[in-house]
Amino acid sequence: MLRLQHDSHRRLNPLTGEWVLVSPHRTSRPWQGQTEAKAEAAIPAYDPGCYLCPGNVRANGERNPAYEDVFAFTNDFAALLPNSPHDEIDNNGLIVARGEPGVCRVVCFSPRHDLTLSQMSVDEIEKVVTLWREEFQQLDQDPIVGAVQIFENRGAMMGASNPHPHCQIWATHSEPNELVKESARQRGYHAASGNCLLCDYLTLELEQEERIICANDGFVALVPFWATWPFETMLLPRRHLSALDAFDAEDSRALADMLSRITRCYDRLFETPFPYSMGFHQRPSDGDEHPHWHFHGHFYPPLLRSATIRKFMVGFELLGSPQRDITPESAAERLRHALLQV
Amino acid sequence: MLRLQHDSHRRLNPLTGEWVLVSPHRTSRPWQGQTEAKAEAAIPAYDPGCYLCPGNVRANGERNPAYEDVFAFTNDFAALLPNSPHDEIDNNGLIVARGEPGVCRVVCFSPRHDLTLSQMSVDEIEKVVTLWREEFQQLDQDPIVGAVQIFENRGAMMGASNPHPHCQIWATHSEPNELVKESARQRGYHAASGNCLLCDYLTLELEQEERIICANDGFVALVPFWATWPFETMLLPRRHLSALDAFDAEDSRALADMLSRITRCYDRLFETPFPYSMGFHQRPSDGDEHPHWHFHGHFYPPLLRSATIRKFMVGFELLGSPQRDITPESAAERLRHALLQV
Ligand SMILES: O=P(O)(O)O[C@H]1O[C@H](CO)[C@@H](O)[C@H](O)[C@H]1O
Ligand SMILES: O=P(O)(O)O[C@H]1O[C@H](CO)[C@@H](O)[C@H](O)[C@H]1O
Repeated sequence: MLRLQHDSHRRLNPLTGEWVLVSPHRTSRPWQGQTEAKAEAAIPAYDPGCYLCPGNVRANGERNPAYEDVFAFTNDFAALLPNSPHDEIDNNGLIVARGEPGVCRVVCFSPRHDLTLSQMSVDEIEKVVTLWREEFQQLDQDPIVGAVQIFENRGAMMGASNPHPHCQIWATHSEPNELVKESARQRGYHAASGNCLLCDYLTLELEQEERIICANDGFVALVPFWATWPFETMLLPRRHLSALDAFDAEDSRALADMLSRITRCYDRLFETPFPYSMGFHQRPSDGDEHPHWHFHGHFYPPLLRSATIRKFMVGFELLGSPQRDITPESAAERLRHALLQV
Repeated sequence: MLRLQHDSHRRLNPLTGEWVLVSPHRTSRPWQGQTEAKAEAAIPAYDPGCYLCPGNVRANGERNPAYEDVFAFTNDFAALLPNSPHDEIDNNGLIVARGEPGVCRVVCFSPRHDLTLSQMSVDEIEKVVTLWREEFQQLDQDPIVGAVQIFENRGAMMGASNPHPHCQIWATHSEPNELVKESARQRGYHAASGNCLLCDYLTLELEQEERIICANDGFVALVPFWATWPFETMLLPRRHLSALDAFDAEDSRALADMLSRITRCYDRLFETPFPYSMGFHQRPSDGDEHPHWHFHGHFYPPLLRSATIRKFMVGFELLGSPQRDITPESAAERLRHALLQV
């Protein structure tokens, strides 16, 4: 009999169809490898050299307004440009490329250089969610845009080159890999059962309780059964919403509240500003109805054992499948415990 | 008209069916983010505290023999164990787990604690290849083993916790995600065309030449058209070999020669011991014939601009698709240039 807290096993990610290897017995392994620098403490409230602070001049010569809460602009070093051609090269299906027009936006969460989501009030975070909704609605209408990816890289360990609280939005002509997989799996489940995959999954999780971190009237935060990163979490709306444009004021408020709770919980876990990449998956922006699509957020944080010991997604992970040592259930227990202390 | 060296575009990985976003215009972006520690210089030829050095005692109390070239043993902190149950849990296709028995081996490349593949002679590397072949043949016969993944994590940046030159072998009951994708795509191409996908791809690359790094009678090293990591490369045998057991003495020698060349080339590129994860993909070990399967090696190195500036696979990469700034063609050119100097 398979014991999930003891035996090596793999778990299916029903959203992507891929598997994660779980080795619960391996946590006792000593770590002699690379340790990470601790995030330095003193960040000023305003940095004259920061291209995101109010009133400063950016790389393209424009001056930021003296914004008081949130502020969005088009990335000066955009990975995607609206005027790229979108024709195709195809050499026998083996050497294949397609032009990829798109739009890259930057969203500042606060004029304060030194804050993070975890230090902002729910009112302040609500303004961020409202701006995401507006940005999404605008990009969703753009004929060159087929998908909108909102994401935040927090912390130097996750490639953030500026501590000023901000996120990015990359709106692509085509659907990125992860969205393609999630679309196909949600469509398939819906076609087979008539139900929404994530609505059904959420019901199961609320019954079992052991992977739930916290919840409010609108959203639930949990460690998914198939979590890859040690303390990976997922934010799920209780209502079947497929994208930000379906949010009403209460949904936005509920999401802001959950973002505040989960980021404070993370910071508390190892008593450090917790690095992560986070972002939202929503229905493609191709103009079609996507009744099977359920909006959700993913947090992918790299830390494993402490503020300085991270999980490396390397060799077997890159060439085979992701692998984890601590189980999602024990991660959830530790996150719930941290939450009691915020 | 799409210009691959100028316009944003995506490229198809025909081995996995996934796409990579290429933004060639973005290389001018300044980097103010995290920089990596340079690898320290002085490593002793023998380290009494190393669990891989000859004659030392390992975590499980066993003493390593006084080996003179290569040495393999079962990992003391194995992520996979042969006696794990392999039954299944399935809750409506949403909470799904399967027991995963397997075997984890460690292969020391040399008794010398301070060497790396790039500093070893081709004769010495050939002994490593021969041992891989023996290990593969043995694991391939094991009824619990369905796939054999040989991989090396080199450098602290890639999670290696011990500089002693070694690799790991994780032999799993089921096929890991990446192998599943590569199997399906190679099978599909073979069914549709009667040809091997990688044989045809290699022919195209040898015609076009611009992504080739080097070659000998048996193998070709190239930057694949769909490379994800900045200086990613692939090793392809010219002959249609599907796994190590099909290698003859000349194939092993040719692979050893290429491993020597490519690792020296990498070390030269930024004048630093180049970190990477590398490994080999070969046909599954399920007892079936896999006429469509073409053995190959992947090198996934993280460095982007220098010994201390790496590529971060974060936000958009984790939630959407991998993204790169320098094109595979310019990476190939720089690697060829580095090779001239080794
Ligand atoms: O087994 P090692 O070398 O201690 O561990 C290293 O390689 C493993 C396989 O790629 C990874 O799961 C670990 O995160 C990494 O630190
Ligand atoms: O755009 P940034 O913040 O400079 O760059 C960061 O996020 C991007 C999107 O995830 C990644 O491609 C980069 O590797 C990372 O450093």
